[in-house]
Amino acid sequence: MRDVVIIGVGQTRVEEHWGKSLRHMAHDAVMAAMKDAGIETADALYVGNMLSGELGGQEHVGALVADFIGLRGIEAMKVEAACASGAAALRVGMFAVASGIHDVVMVCGVEKMTDAVGDEVTSGLATAADQEYEVSQGISFVGLNALLMRRYMHQFDVKHEHFAGFAVNAHKNGANNPNAMFQSPIKAETYLRASMIADPINLMDSSPVCDGAACVILAPADGYRARAKAHILASAVATDSLAIHDRRDPLTLDAVALSSQKAYAQARITPTDVDLFEVHDAFTIMAALSLEAAGFAPRGRGVCMAVDNEIGIEGRLPISTMGGLKSRGHPVGATGVYQIVEVVAQLTGQAGKNQVQGARIGMAQNIGGSGATVITHILGGV
Amino acid sequence: MRDVVIIGVGQTRVEEHWGKSLRHMAHDAVMAAMKDAGIETADALYVGNMLSGELGGQEHVGALVADFIGLRGIEAMKVEAACASGAAALRVGMFAVASGIHDVVMVCGVEKMTDAVGDEVTSGLATAADQEYEVSQGISFVGLNALLMRRYMHQFDVKHEHFAGFAVNAHKNGANNPNAMFQSPIKAETYLRASMIADPINLMDSSPVCDGAACVILAPADGYRARAKAHILASAVATDSLAIHDRRDPLTLDAVALSSQKAYAQARITPTDVDLFEVHDAFTIMAALSLEAAGFAPRGRGVCMAVDNEIGIEGRLPISTMGGLKSRGHPVGATGVYQIVEVVAQLTGQAGKNQVQGARIGMAQNIGGSGATVITHILGGV
Repeated sequence: MRDVVIIGVGQTRVEEHWGKSLRHMAHDAVMAAMKDAGIETADALYVGNMLSGELGGQEHVGALVADFIGLRGIEAMKVEAACASGAAALRVGMFAVASGIHDVVMVCGVEKMTDAVGDEVTSGLATAADQEYEVSQGISFVGLNALLMRRYMHQFDVKHEHFAGFAVNAHKNGANNPNAMFQSPIKAETYLRASMIADPINLMDSSPVCDGAACVILAPADGYRARAKAHILASAVATDSLAIHDRRDPLTLDAVALSSQKAYAQARITPTDVDLFEVHDAFTIMAALSLEAAGFAPRGRGVCMAVDNEIGIEGRLPISTMGGLKSRGHPVGATGVYQIVEVVAQLTGQAGKNQVQGARIGMAQNIGGSGATVITHILGGV
Repeated sequence: MRDVVIIGVGQTRVEEHWGKSLRHMAHDAVMAAMKDAGIETADALYVGNMLSGELGGQEHVGALVADFIGLRGIEAMKVEAACASGAAALRVGMFAVASGIHDVVMVCGVEKMTDAVGDEVTSGLATAADQEYEVSQGISFVGLNALLMRRYMHQFDVKHEHFAGFAVNAHKNGANNPNAMFQSPIKAETYLRASMIADPINLMDSSPVCDGAACVILAPADGYRARAKAHILASAVATDSLAIHDRRDPLTLDAVALSSQKAYAQARITPTDVDLFEVHDAFTIMAALSLEAAGFAPRGRGVCMAVDNEIGIEGRLPISTMGGLKSRGHPVGATGVYQIVEVVAQLTGQAGKNQVQGARIGMAQNIGGSGATVITHILGGV
C-alpha cells in the first residue's frame, strides 16, 4: 500500500447555518480545502454524513455534492457510521489512495441538523443506537449516555462536579477558535448551574445540535511529499455492540481500546508519544471513558485528568484543543473530519493561541453510537 | 494495487420478509456467503444500504450487522449511493483488499422496505432525487422516471407496448430463479393490461418494493487464486447531476456512458466482449437508456433490443439473467450485490435453466437516482 498524506484542509464555522443548505456548506468546505491544497480538481469525493436522509429528505449526497462543487462526473459516495461517519469517509478515501486506484481524493464531512425540529433531531440521533432493543423502549441517545454517566459516578464514587473540567477546557479552547460554535469561556460555576437535560447529563456535559462541513484532501506521499501538511501514520476501525446492555461491561469501551491499540501498533508509538488527542467528547462521560480505554488513564480515573487539569494545552495530554465536540460543535457526520482538520492545524503550527508547542504526533478518535464504532487516526507532522 | 477475486457469495430470497428484520436478513446472506467461501471470519464488513434510517429508524448498520453475525469488533461501516449503494459498498471492499490493508472482506447489501407504509417508501425513494429542486415540487421518483419515459416515446416515436419485452424477459428469467421475488412468467398481454402507476409507467414497467440481502466475499488473487469464483476485471464509478433538468440531455445517461467506458478500458474489452449484462432495470425506461449509453444500442434504439428479443438468454446480449430488478426484485441498497452474486452464478455455470452458455465475461451496472451515480463492475470467470 502507498503512504497517504494530507495536502489541504478546509472548514466552515460550526453554527446554525440558517442561510445555507447542506450542499452549500459542503461546497464552502471543499473549496477552502482545494484552495489550501492548490488543486482545481480531484479523482473522487467521499462524503461523511449521518442524517441527511432523516433530517433533510436527501440521501445520495455523494453525487449531489460532487455536482455542486463543479466536479460533475467524478466518483462520489456517502459513508455512514453514525457519529463516526466523518472518520469512516476518511478511511475510505485513504483506501482509495493507498490502493493506487486514485491519486487525489476529497473527504468531506457535512451535517445539517438545525433545519429540523427538536423531536426529529432526537429521533435522528437515536438511529445510532439499537432501534429494536434500546430505542423502541423509549430511550433517547442522551438518555443512554446519562445511564452510563450515572453508573460511572456510582461505581467509581465520582461526583458530577468532577466532570466540569472537560467542559471548562473545551470552552477555553473554543474561545480561540474562530470556527467554533461557542467562542466564550465558561467557569466551573456555569457548569454546575447548567440546565439538566437527562440527569446527570446537563447542558454543559453535552455537545450542541449544529451545522457544519469540513474537508481534507488526500494524496500519495510519493509525488506529493513536498506539499504534505501531515502524514497519516495510522487508521484503525473497531466495533462493538450497538446496545450497551449487550456488552461485557458498560463502562469499558472495548472498541476504543481495540481501535487505539491497532492505531498505536500501526504508527509504532505508545500513548505517551501522543502530543494531543482530539477526543470524541460528545458527552463528558464519553471523554472520560475514551481516555481510559485509549490508555491515557486507568479504569475509573479518566475523570481525574479533568480534575487535575492534565488536559489543557500545556497539560500532560491536551485534548479538544480547538474546542472539541462540546465547544467547536458536533455536526455529527462532519465531526470526524473537523478533528482531522484541527490535528493538521496543530501539526503545522497554525493553531494560534491554542498551539501545542512542539506537536509532532496528533491523534483523532471519532465514535459512532455509545462506542459501537470507533475510528482512530494518528497523524504525524512533516 | 492487488488484483481482487470473489471467493464466496450468498443471498436471501427477495420477498416480503415479514418475519425477519434487517439484521436477520443480512445475517442469513453473510452466513451463506461465508459457508460458500469456506471461511469463519473476515477482516471487515462493508454494508450497502440506502433506507435503514428513513424506514427502520436505524442508522449505524455496519456495526449492527458485524455484531449480529458474531464478528463483534471487526471493522464495519455503511456505504450509501441511493440505489447504487450495493455496488458502492463493493467498491469500498475492493479498495480495502486492493490496497493490501485487508485480506478477506465481506460486502453485504441489505434493504428492508416492507415494514414501512407506502407513503414512507415513496418519500424514502425520493431521497435519491434532488430534494430542493425536484422532490420539493411534489414529484415522486417513479414520476421522474415517467417523465423520462414519456419524453423518450415522444422523441424517438416509440410506443409504450415496445417496452413490453423488457418485462417479459425479466419475468421469464425470474421464473427459474428460486431467489426471485416473482417466479411466474408473464405474457405481453399482461404487460399491456397492467395497472398504471405514473403514466406511462405501469406496474410491469416498474420494479417492486421488497426486502432482501446479498453478500459477496472478496480476497486478493495472490493467495486465494485457487478458491476464486470470479475475478473483478473492472470497477468504475461516475456521477451526474441528481436533478434531471440540470443535464445537457435528459435522454442521455452521461454517467452510464462514462462509467461503462472506464470499465471497458480497465478490463481491456469492448461491449461486444460482454457475455451478459445485469442492467439496472428499475424501470423499463432505465433499461433502454442504459443499453444505449453503455454502448449496446444506438441512441433511441435501446428499446429495439427488447422488441427484437436480443436480450434473452440466447440473444445477442442476455440481460437481467436471473430476473433483474423487475422480477428478482429491487431491495434498493442490496440490488448491486445481488447483481454480482448473479454474475458469479453465470460465470461458474450455476445459473441453472438461465445459464448463458460459455459465459466468460459478465457486467453488472448499479444506478443511483435517475442515473446520478453509476457503478459498473466487470467480472471474469476463472
